[in-house]
Amino acid sequence: MENDLFDFATANRIIFGKGKLELLSDIIQGLGRHVIVVKGKSFPDPKRLYEILETSGIERTEYIVSTEPNLEMLIEAVSIARQAKCDFVIGFGGGAPIDAGKAIAALINNKGDILNYLEVVGKGMPLGNPSKPYIAIPTTSGTGSEVTRNAVISILDKRVKVSMRDAYLLPSVALIDPELTVSVPPHITASTGMDAFTQVIEPYLTKNTNPLVDMFCREAIPRAAKSLYKAYKNGSDMNARVDMSFVSLLGGLSLANAKLGAVHGLAGPIGGMFHAPHGVICAALLPAVMVVNAELIASADNTEQKVARFKDIARWVTGDSSATIHAGVDWIANLAAKMKIPGLAKLGISPSDFPEIIKKSRRSSSMKGNPVLLTENQMHRILEMSL
Amino acid sequence: MENDLFDFATANRIIFGKGKLELLSDIIQGLGRHVIVVKGKSFPDPKRLYEILETSGIERTEYIVSTEPNLEMLIEAVSIARQAKCDFVIGFGGGAPIDAGKAIAALINNKGDILNYLEVVGKGMPLGNPSKPYIAIPTTSGTGSEVTRNAVISILDKRVKVSMRDAYLLPSVALIDPELTVSVPPHITASTGMDAFTQVIEPYLTKNTNPLVDMFCREAIPRAAKSLYKAYKNGSDMNARVDMSFVSLLGGLSLANAKLGAVHGLAGPIGGMFHAPHGVICAALLPAVMVVNAELIASADNTEQKVARFKDIARWVTGDSSATIHAGVDWIANLAAKMKIPGLAKLGISPSDFPEIIKKSRRSSSMKGNPVLLTENQMHRILEMSL
Repeated sequence: MENDLFDFATANRIIFGKGKLELLSDIIQGLGRHVIVVKGKSFPDPKRLYEILETSGIERTEYIVSTEPNLEMLIEAVSIARQAKCDFVIGFGGGAPIDAGKAIAALINNKGDILNYLEVVGKGMPLGNPSKPYIAIPTTSGTGSEVTRNAVISILDKRVKVSMRDAYLLPSVALIDPELTVSVPPHITASTGMDAFTQVIEPYLTKNTNPLVDMFCREAIPRAAKSLYKAYKNGSDMNARVDMSFVSLLGGLSLANAKLGAVHGLAGPIGGMFHAPHGVICAALLPAVMVVNAELIASADNTEQKVARFKDIARWVTGDSSATIHAGVDWIANLAAKMKIPGLAKLGISPSDFPEIIKKSRRSSSMKGNPVLLTENQMHRILEMSL
Repeated sequence: MENDLFDFATANRIIFGKGKLELLSDIIQGLGRHVIVVKGKSFPDPKRLYEILETSGIERTEYIVSTEPNLEMLIEAVSIARQAKCDFVIGFGGGAPIDAGKAIAALINNKGDILNYLEVVGKGMPLGNPSKPYIAIPTTSGTGSEVTRNAVISILDKRVKVSMRDAYLLPSVALIDPELTVSVPPHITASTGMDAFTQVIEPYLTKNTNPLVDMFCREAIPRAAKSLYKAYKNGSDMNARVDMSFVSLLGGLSLANAKLGAVHGLAGPIGGMFHAPHGVICAALLPAVMVVNAELIASADNTEQKVARFKDIARWVTGDSSATIHAGVDWIANLAAKMKIPGLAKLGISPSDFPEIIKKSRRSSSMKGNPVLLTENQMHRILEMSL
């Protein structure tokens, strides 16, 4: 094995399967009497979730998250949860409520200024106390945040996103029921799906690979290629939804245990500067990043192993055992086009923003994972292609 | 996905890589002042382990495990650990000391009769209190016990082996350093390696598969086929040792999350009745079980999917994309023969023992995972072929 090292940790328990939401009544046994449910504002209907809580005699406080988590939101939610004496936390929704729930579960038990626990803008201190028990129930197939140890938080006045990162942020239970993703509309299936796809492509191409993450990516890339478009075209295609939930989970497991690359290196700063979901940004960037990376790798020296990995991806996505790198990248760009992934321009980004994005991305740890070092010109080109 | 359900849990943290033993000084920070080290009686030399403990100012009590764990041993070790006021536990060795350490870490914090916590012979009660922090450092590539939630314990007077099984038995840290396996002698590399091999073959062929375990098996089977014989022939072949450590880990992850089959269904009762390591028994049984299962599956109806899985294994082990099931099974039997795996007769088993073994195996949960239902005659034939 070329790189034989890894250091792996994940949610205490991962439960996966169609209809598994029903297990919630067992899972919450003994966790206490009052829960705060952190959820998105629209789909899916939390009816069944709430029935299970009621049947179990659990009181509930609901906290609605309508954007990605930010400081003000967390302060408010934690204060509500403490006042209601919540014993445990459920996150129910896409990446935003799952991340928010993670931070809220931690902050209920860790007093003082939230900034103490934030990277970059704060002190990045470790959490002193374990979180409240946290059950993450994702209802989109995207971030895989249900199995990671960080929560991304927007600092609105500074136009940046930063991470709270700690082993205590790992959810107690990740409960993944693909049935909950059936009502996700096509455009969100597309963007979240491309986010998940990115999270299994970048770790496979990164500089420091490891055998565990390689295994996750090898499993996930062909599944995403097979099922993302199907789930987009027909949201009720249960096999496709199951595949994408599994891809998302594997993306989270990969992400938590590997560096990423330029898609995430650029998406981080863009997400802080513009009000757009992380998945949409990643989806817009992925094809161009792959094109530019593939070109650079094909023309550079000593990249045999990287070339082989680009070829693996080309074979897996096209299903053609002799596919060229170019054919693989085309296939991915074509998938994004077919799903009408909006470009960065739709998010309000114009070329005048490129210098700031590029400058900020230089400090991102994801950028360091990119398989080749990108010049400013090359990043500029990626952003232009992604408009 | 045909079977889309799983419920996954493992050690809180899995650290893997050549030379990673050195991380122990970080891992033990804050765990306390006194450790009980549960270790095997011979290889490998614990010198470096003890140096790290000494440099970290940790006092140590050593407990040597010379056979697979039994009741008397656990009672003695727990009493020693309590008297020495041990704060945490390290298991260092093959499957026996790793399992013993697991049980000791649990029992220090859970008073009363050990039988309360044992299946079959006792009450099978859940552990009321979390275990002492437990760091599992395997030095053979076999059981994968460093990531499972059960410890196998012999009840000597009843000639049975039973499990203590609880989420609290999952080690806090699995620290897997393939360098520690270099001194394992060839015959033990062979038997432990065949145990690991069995643990990734049986879950792939079992009745109730799931996508996570399938992924582990698909990764592990080709690696074991590539590297087990190399590690047996040349114990210093570091790439082969790394592969086998990874296979063993994947076997543990598979085992903990899937049913097994007839190898384990027969090995359980045999292990209770005869004084032989689990790995040696599995190694002796694997070829015959595969032969008989493959014959039955080839001749039965509605087994297309099972046939496909036997063919997958045949392709992976032989490296020949058109290999027949028969060729795959032959390859595995031949591997066992080349490594001079002793037969069951060497363990003192004779045909007169078969009826009792077969009767006991009917009650084993592993046997229920076998891809086909075996008659008594068929089990008899397997045992005969394995003498």
